[in-house]
Amino acid sequence: MRRIWISFVWAWSAFGAETVDLIVSGRQVVTMDAGERIIANGAVAVKGERIVAVGPRAEIDKAYKAKQRIDRPDALITPGLVNTHTHAPMSLLRGIADDLRLQEWLEKYIFPAEARNVTPEFVRAGTQLAVLEMLLGGTTTYTDMYYFEEVIGEATAAAGMRAVLGQTVIGFPVPDAKTPQLALARNEAFLKQFAGHRLVTAAVAPHALYTNSDETLRATRALANKYGAPLLIHVAETKREFDESKQKRGMTPVQALAKLGVFDGRTVAAHGVWLDDEDVATLARKQVGVAHCPTSNMKLSSGVAPLPKLLKAGVPLGLGPDGPAGSNNEFNLFEEMDLAAKLQKVITMDPEAVPAKTAFRMATMGGARVLGMEKEIGSIETGKRADLIAIRMDGPHAWPMFNVYSQLVYALKASDVNDVVVNGRVVVRDRRALTLDKTKIQAEAERYLGRVRKSLE
Amino acid sequence: MRRIWISFVWAWSAFGAETVDLIVSGRQVVTMDAGERIIANGAVAVKGERIVAVGPRAEIDKAYKAKQRIDRPDALITPGLVNTHTHAPMSLLRGIADDLRLQEWLEKYIFPAEARNVTPEFVRAGTQLAVLEMLLGGTTTYTDMYYFEEVIGEATAAAGMRAVLGQTVIGFPVPDAKTPQLALARNEAFLKQFAGHRLVTAAVAPHALYTNSDETLRATRALANKYGAPLLIHVAETKREFDESKQKRGMTPVQALAKLGVFDGRTVAAHGVWLDDEDVATLARKQVGVAHCPTSNMKLSSGVAPLPKLLKAGVPLGLGPDGPAGSNNEFNLFEEMDLAAKLQKVITMDPEAVPAKTAFRMATMGGARVLGMEKEIGSIETGKRADLIAIRMDGPHAWPMFNVYSQLVYALKASDVNDVVVNGRVVVRDRRALTLDKTKIQAEAERYLGRVRKSLE
Repeated sequence: MRRIWISFVWAWSAFGAETVDLIVSGRQVVTMDAGERIIANGAVAVKGERIVAVGPRAEIDKAYKAKQRIDRPDALITPGLVNTHTHAPMSLLRGIADDLRLQEWLEKYIFPAEARNVTPEFVRAGTQLAVLEMLLGGTTTYTDMYYFEEVIGEATAAAGMRAVLGQTVIGFPVPDAKTPQLALARNEAFLKQFAGHRLVTAAVAPHALYTNSDETLRATRALANKYGAPLLIHVAETKREFDESKQKRGMTPVQALAKLGVFDGRTVAAHGVWLDDEDVATLARKQVGVAHCPTSNMKLSSGVAPLPKLLKAGVPLGLGPDGPAGSNNEFNLFEEMDLAAKLQKVITMDPEAVPAKTAFRMATMGGARVLGMEKEIGSIETGKRADLIAIRMDGPHAWPMFNVYSQLVYALKASDVNDVVVNGRVVVRDRRALTLDKTKIQAEAERYLGRVRKSLE
Repeated sequence: MRRIWISFVWAWSAFGAETVDLIVSGRQVVTMDAGERIIANGAVAVKGERIVAVGPRAEIDKAYKAKQRIDRPDALITPGLVNTHTHAPMSLLRGIADDLRLQEWLEKYIFPAEARNVTPEFVRAGTQLAVLEMLLGGTTTYTDMYYFEEVIGEATAAAGMRAVLGQTVIGFPVPDAKTPQLALARNEAFLKQFAGHRLVTAAVAPHALYTNSDETLRATRALANKYGAPLLIHVAETKREFDESKQKRGMTPVQALAKLGVFDGRTVAAHGVWLDDEDVATLARKQVGVAHCPTSNMKLSSGVAPLPKLLKAGVPLGLGPDGPAGSNNEFNLFEEMDLAAKLQKVITMDPEAVPAKTAFRMATMGGARVLGMEKEIGSIETGKRADLIAIRMDGPHAWPMFNVYSQLVYALKASDVNDVVVNGRVVVRDRRALTLDKTKIQAEAERYLGRVRKSLE
C-alpha cells in the first residue's frame, strides 16, 4: 500500500514536468546576473550545455525532473570562475625560482628551463596538472598564452574545461617556432583546428609590444580579425616597459599599441599596471579587457594597477593568476579576488576602493566581459552555458556568514569548492576530478621535476 | 613458524629501544632549528610534553618504540605555527562589516555589536570556534587580547591548545570592566588563576597608548613584571595614532611608550606600522617583539610595516591575523606568511625583500621569539615542547616541489594541514579536531549570527 502511495506521489509531482539533464541546488544561488540576485534555497536546471531555469528550489523541482542531481543544502552555488591570464604548462616549474629579480629569474631559470624542456609532451603534462588544479579550485574558463597551444587545446577539451588559448608570437626563437613568421603560420593552423569548438576558443597571442616588431604586431591583429578571434597580449606590466616605450617611441605602451591598431578588435591586455590617465581612457574607449594579476604584480615587484580608475572608466576587468613559476605558485582565483580587494585598500588608503562584491564580479562577469563572452558565461542565467560551482560551507572559517560576498572573497578558499559543472557536464564531484587521472598527473609532475632539475645543472 | 620469526624480529629490533608516547614521521621534517635543517624521510619522537629526538626515520625507529604513530610519508612535518596577535571571540562577528572606513566600522558595527552581545557565553562560543579554525589550520599557539580572558583561557586549555592571553585594559567601559582599575584587578586575578599553567600563559594587555592614561599604562607594566608576564599592546597601527602622538606628546607612539617604561619587560607590540628609524632602533634595543599583521593592515588601509628595516635591526618578528570582524575574516597563518612576503615585494619594488624562508621563520621561530618562548616552541628540537604539524602534499597545487619554503609560503594552504600535535597531544588527526565538538560549535555560531543581527536592528 505504502509503495503504491509513493509511486502515485512521484507520478503526480512529475506530471507535466519537463525532463532536464541536471539540477544543482544549494543554500544560496549567487547569480551575478544584471540585478545580482541571490536566491535563497535556490536551484539551477541544466539541459544539454545550457541553463534552462534558475529560481527557488521548490519552483525548479516542481517544473523539472532531473536525470542527475547535485544537492548541496549547505553550499553556495555560483558561476564558475573565469581566469583571464595564465601560462598553464608552467605548472611543472612551480616554485623553481622565487624571490628573485626579474632578469636573474628569466635568464638563469625560466629561459634555460623552457629551452631545454618544453616539448609537446611537457606541455600536455603541464596542462593536465594545471587544469586539474584549476577545476578543483572552481575555475571553469581559463585564458592561456604559451607554446604548442594546440596540445593545450586538446588536453583542455579532453578534461571538459573551457578555455581561450593563444599561440605565442614572439620575436625570437622559442620551443615551438624559430621565427615570428612560423609562429603566425602555426597560429593560423591553430585557429582553423579549433574553429567552432564548443569549449576551446582559439586566439592570437603576440607576447608584448617590446618583444615583437610593429609588422608582426599588425599581422597578429589582422590574423585575429580574419578569424573573429580575440587577441591576447601582455601590456604595461613593468616600469621598464613603460619607460622604454616612452623613450623609444615617445608614447606609452598603450598609446603605441593603439596607434598600431592592435586594439581594433577584441583584445585581452594582461597586467595593465603602468597606465596613465590617457591610457585608461584609451582602454575604455576601445573596450580593451584588462586581466588584472595582483599576485604576479606583487611577487615580481612589477607595481600596482590603478584598479579604481579602470573601474570608474568602465574598462572590462578580470583576474589572472599568471604563471606558477615565479609570478605566482598556483592557479587560484580565490587568492586573486582576495588580493585584488586588499591590495587596493592599502595602496589607496581607502577601504572602500575595491569592495568584496566588485572583486567577485571581476572573477565572474568581469572576466566574461574581458573575453567578450559575457553573453555565454560569467553568470547563472537562463540561456547561458552551464558553468557553475558549488562551494562548501562546512569549515569553521565559513561560520557565521553575515555577508555572502565577504565570505566568498575573504574567507572561503579554492579548497572549499565541492562540485564543478562546465558546459553542462559535471567535471568535479565531491572534490574529485572525474575527467583527469590524478595519480598519473602526479607521477608526471615528479618525473619532470627530476628532468628539469637535471637540465639546469 | 612464521609467527615465531616475526616475534623474534620484533623483539630484536625493539631490544634496547626506549618507549616513547608518539612518533611523527614524514617526507621531510622542516626543523627551523639554528641550522634550519631539513631532514628527508624524517621523524620526531615525543615523550610526554616534549620532543626527545629528531632525525632520519630509520634512526628514530631503531632507537624508539612508539605507543602511537602518525606516519605521513607524503607530508611535510613542521613546527606548529605561532599567532602573535588576535582577538579570538570576534570569530562570531566574521565579515559583519567589511570594506568600511575605520570610524564607521567601529561606531556603527563593532562597538554596538560588542556592547550588546559580549558575555562570558559569547566569549566561550567564539573562542571554541576560533580555536577549531586555528588548530585545523596548523596554528598551535595563539596570542589574544579581548574581554573575559579567563573564559578564553579555560576554553583554550580544554581544547589542548597553547596560548598567551591578555585581559584588555582600556580607558572606557567595556563588557568585562567598567573602569581600567577594575580591568587591572581582573587582570591580576587572571594572572593568579593561570600561574604555572602548562598551556596558557597569562599576560597583561593594555589596549593602546591612545586609549589609556599614562598612569594605567605604568600600572600594567608593573603588574606584568610583578608576575613575570608578557605585556601585549597595539602600537603605531594607524597614521592617525602616529600623528596624534607627535602632536600631543611631541614624540612618536614608540618613544612615548618607551619613556613611560612600558617596554621595560617582555612586550608584544601588535602592528608596528608607523615607525620611524629611531623607533625601529628603540624596538631592537628593548627587544620588543612585533606582531606583524599584513592582512589587517591592508584591509583596514592602515599602511605597510617597514619589515626590511625591522628584520635588519634584529627586532623579533612574528605574524598575526588580528580579529576576523573587519581586520580580517579568518585565523590563517598560511595567508599571513604569503602576504608578509608578497606585500613587501611590491612596496619596496624588491622581490628579495622578504623571501619565503623569512616569512616561514616569522610564523615559527620568529613568533616564538616575539612571545619570549623561543626556548620552548617555534622549532622541532630535542628538549622543546612537542608542538608540530603534518602538512599534506596530495593536491595538485603542491606538485612538483622545487623548494620547500616556496611551497610552504606560496602554494600550501591551511586546508592542507592534516595532523596537529600540541604539547605532545594529538589534537587534530586526518583533518578532524579531536578535542572540540564541531557540530555544536557550528550551531552556536548560527545562533549568535541571529542574535547579533537582531541586536543591530
